[in-house]
Amino acid sequence: MTMAKRDTYTPESLLAVAVEVFIERGYDGTSMEHLSRAAGISKSSIYHHVRSKEELLRLAISRALDGLFAILREPGACRGRAIDRLEHVTRRTADVLMAELPYVTLLLRVRGNTDTERWAMERRREFDHQVRQLLERAAADGDLRDDVDLGLATRLLFGMINSIVEWYRPHGRGATDREQVADAVVRMAFSGLRTT
Amino acid sequence: MTMAKRDTYTPESLLAVAVEVFIERGYDGTSMEHLSRAAGISKSSIYHHVRSKEELLRLAISRALDGLFAILREPGACRGRAIDRLEHVTRRTADVLMAELPYVTLLLRVRGNTDTERWAMERRREFDHQVRQLLERAAADGDLRDDVDLGLATRLLFGMINSIVEWYRPHGRGATDREQVADAVVRMAFSGLRTT
Repeated sequence: MTMAKRDTYTPESLLAVAVEVFIERGYDGTSMEHLSRAAGISKSSIYHHVRSKEELLRLAISRALDGLFAILREPGACRGRAIDRLEHVTRRTADVLMAELPYVTLLLRVRGNTDTERWAMERRREFDHQVRQLLERAAADGDLRDDVDLGLATRLLFGMINSIVEWYRPHGRGATDREQVADAVVRMAFSGLRTT
Repeated sequence: MTMAKRDTYTPESLLAVAVEVFIERGYDGTSMEHLSRAAGISKSSIYHHVRSKEELLRLAISRALDGLFAILREPGACRGRAIDRLEHVTRRTADVLMAELPYVTLLLRVRGNTDTERWAMERRREFDHQVRQLLERAAADGDLRDDVDLGLATRLLFGMINSIVEWYRPHGRGATDREQVADAVVRMAFSGLRTT
């Protein structure tokens, strides 16, 4: 039993609490009761902000997806050689992942049976597909090595970027700078670690 | 209620069933009852093979760790320039991950409070640490680019390798060849995707 506090939540601050609980317990394992306890307000106060647990998930996932899809409309993603656009998208995807860490973490973990989860997975595949098309254009330009299958390259590139959620923490001692991490991803993926 | 079948399990075949259940339900979420149902034999038959659920976890994790640590004793990991040893270890780590897919998947997912889980995490850190030392030696030899922090490079390298568990499936149509995947990891990580 937790003392209910006065509901001073905005939709954004309530969402931030909900996302932490979803990540910790899994979306399926989270009840409105868990959300109420974590937020310190009653369930009916939560229903004052959102209609359902699934709406909270949709809002959280939208925030991640909006951040990611906005990258594809940036000038650096639309102009110039495909290889440079691909590098830009790689750098910015890593950057958005770190800037919107809990939201992107949730997006990456969603596997499920609700409409919202299916929609999230579908949109994530669409993003991957658009990046894959950039790899195809860069390969057609002769700017991409031809001894790595493009499907594999796309998977490994996202594998490297997405693995950042496993260890990156924005605050605290020894926190690594976002720019430094994004630079490292781009250097390793496009130029490789070897100097010799 | 499932009809119990005759217990024809070997320790290995029982372990294979248990690992699938651990991956699907999570180790904490798996009871002896779940294991009994998945194996189609009684709980007492399972206790004939192992003392506890935790012993099954220890056996499964040991199989993954034995495969990984054996790499570090291979000639390719012990002789020659550090950068070449590092490439060998990278290739073979990807290869062992695919060859022992469910066991390594379980190792990567373990986060927990039992002695066995703590031991698994400790051994995994030790493996990462030994690879990190190879990066340090390669850097000291001047064979590794000096504009990527070694800790970051280690994390991203393992991030790329470990992400293979998310999509690699050894059987079925369009199954990707293990060697092709391991080659792609080494090419991307050490030489990069760019040709220009």
